[in-house]
Amino acid sequence: MELVEVSDADDPRLADYTRLRDVELRKSLEAEHGLFIAEGEKVIRRAVGAGYPVRSVLLTRKWLASLRDLPGDVTAYVVSDEVMRNVAGFHVHRGALASMARLPLPSVADLLAGPGVRRATGEEEALLGHGDVERGGRHPRRILVLEDLVDHGNVGAIFRCAAALGIDGIVLSPRCADPLYRRAVKVSMGAVFAIPYARMADWYAGLEEVREAGYRLLALTPDQNATPIDTVKTGERVALLLGAEGDGLSSRWLDEADESVCIPMSPTAMAAGVDSLNVVAAAAIACHGLMRPSR
Amino acid sequence: MELVEVSDADDPRLADYTRLRDVELRKSLEAEHGLFIAEGEKVIRRAVGAGYPVRSVLLTRKWLASLRDLPGDVTAYVVSDEVMRNVAGFHVHRGALASMARLPLPSVADLLAGPGVRRATGEEEALLGHGDVERGGRHPRRILVLEDLVDHGNVGAIFRCAAALGIDGIVLSPRCADPLYRRAVKVSMGAVFAIPYARMADWYAGLEEVREAGYRLLALTPDQNATPIDTVKTGERVALLLGAEGDGLSSRWLDEADESVCIPMSPTAMAAGVDSLNVVAAAAIACHGLMRPSR
Repeated sequence: MELVEVSDADDPRLADYTRLRDVELRKSLEAEHGLFIAEGEKVIRRAVGAGYPVRSVLLTRKWLASLRDLPGDVTAYVVSDEVMRNVAGFHVHRGALASMARLPLPSVADLLAGPGVRRATGEEEALLGHGDVERGGRHPRRILVLEDLVDHGNVGAIFRCAAALGIDGIVLSPRCADPLYRRAVKVSMGAVFAIPYARMADWYAGLEEVREAGYRLLALTPDQNATPIDTVKTGERVALLLGAEGDGLSSRWLDEADESVCIPMSPTAMAAGVDSLNVVAAAAIACHGLMRPSR
Repeated sequence: MELVEVSDADDPRLADYTRLRDVELRKSLEAEHGLFIAEGEKVIRRAVGAGYPVRSVLLTRKWLASLRDLPGDVTAYVVSDEVMRNVAGFHVHRGALASMARLPLPSVADLLAGPGVRRATGEEEALLGHGDVERGGRHPRRILVLEDLVDHGNVGAIFRCAAALGIDGIVLSPRCADPLYRRAVKVSMGAVFAIPYARMADWYAGLEEVREAGYRLLALTPDQNATPIDTVKTGERVALLLGAEGDGLSSRWLDEADESVCIPMSPTAMAAGVDSLNVVAAAAIACHGLMRPSR
């Protein structure tokens, strides 16, 4: 690790870390330079462990020891608390940030094909009688499809739930919030690195592609006439569709789904106006429901 | 509704609304004056509907029409956006705040006895042969007990889940965050008014009081050797114990519980370091598990 002391918050070498709370600025900066920010020792280590290359580290002297052994040829900018605050735009609680390089996302088709499948060569196909070669991986059986969630915290929390409960992959609609945005990474505790995901190119046709890959599409809705999540027959491959905060799933996606499912709620609470769960709580219950032994 | 235009953020009549983001100031102000703040039309109406008296309303002219019909003799202070921001300390998104009077909390014993039970008079006792008179209510069968949760957003989110899923009541440890603090009220969407709760006077002896009221104590833990939540035998009355963010339940409460229960997690995720759910996701899954048909 190469240590570089920096005393000026405007030093161009710190440009990756500028104004972390400015969502619009960050979006353009991160898209243009293909980077994202990991915060705190634990999350930085998880990002490194997941194979993301480190562009640089920014930390105060106090946190140096905790990251000194990061593998590879890493440049660490060492700054005072004040410079750290001035660069980031707030007090960084766990005094260490890393700028990481993004990796190319898989296409939805590649994600759904699983880690261990590739297209056979002509010779292999002639031999096997089909066009896929298994490379020892497994197909994702249970996936989530998130439609237009706008809150980075919610996206991070859903990734954390999904990873912890054993969901195999996540497909995002084109407008869904970025799982590698700082707050999503932080709330997920690094689970965004632990679960493979892809982003649809096209909202309109995207869901059909998931179905054609062999998934039964279950739309989660607050409608209490839908099938209760614990009684739904899930079959071999299932995609659970989760809608945006507030509005829920679009009518197009609701219509396209094979079945609507719901989480049973208290009639008393509904009468009193407590008529929905927040999307993270709903996702947690639904993921748990999906992951119970097959029926 | 009496309308009073106020043009000065330092006007003493607005004292209830001062610096809403200053947790320490608000704690002392709210404790001393027995008030709490509801934010936005929907939540204000739910607080009024739940029987909390309105001390006053503070709103910008734009939001006047939405609350004009509040019942009772309410004073509304009408201010500019700028005064609103200066009083509250931030931009109030849903332009209306209400200062509400707190009501006395029931004791834990009263909460667990349910809304419809009182001590019989001597004459009644002689007649009935026992000392309780049912007044048509029901005993709370499923309750949560929260130990030292410090985050107001988490407390609000757990109240929302609990209410929506049909939990009958919540007991708080002495140090647990206040459900009527503004952020808790907001995150709960007003569910803190829909579910009865009480606060233990004593952490040390408090859990024993719950058990003596006839509840089986289930401690929720990440320990995967505990009983999976969906297979636990719940019996007639169950109290689910939820521990603080980060640390979880204290060893005293874990020891005191009748049984430890867990949410099954993915072994792959645990191996990758994604080894827990956040407390709201865990609470949501556990409440859902408790509320399924009795086993």
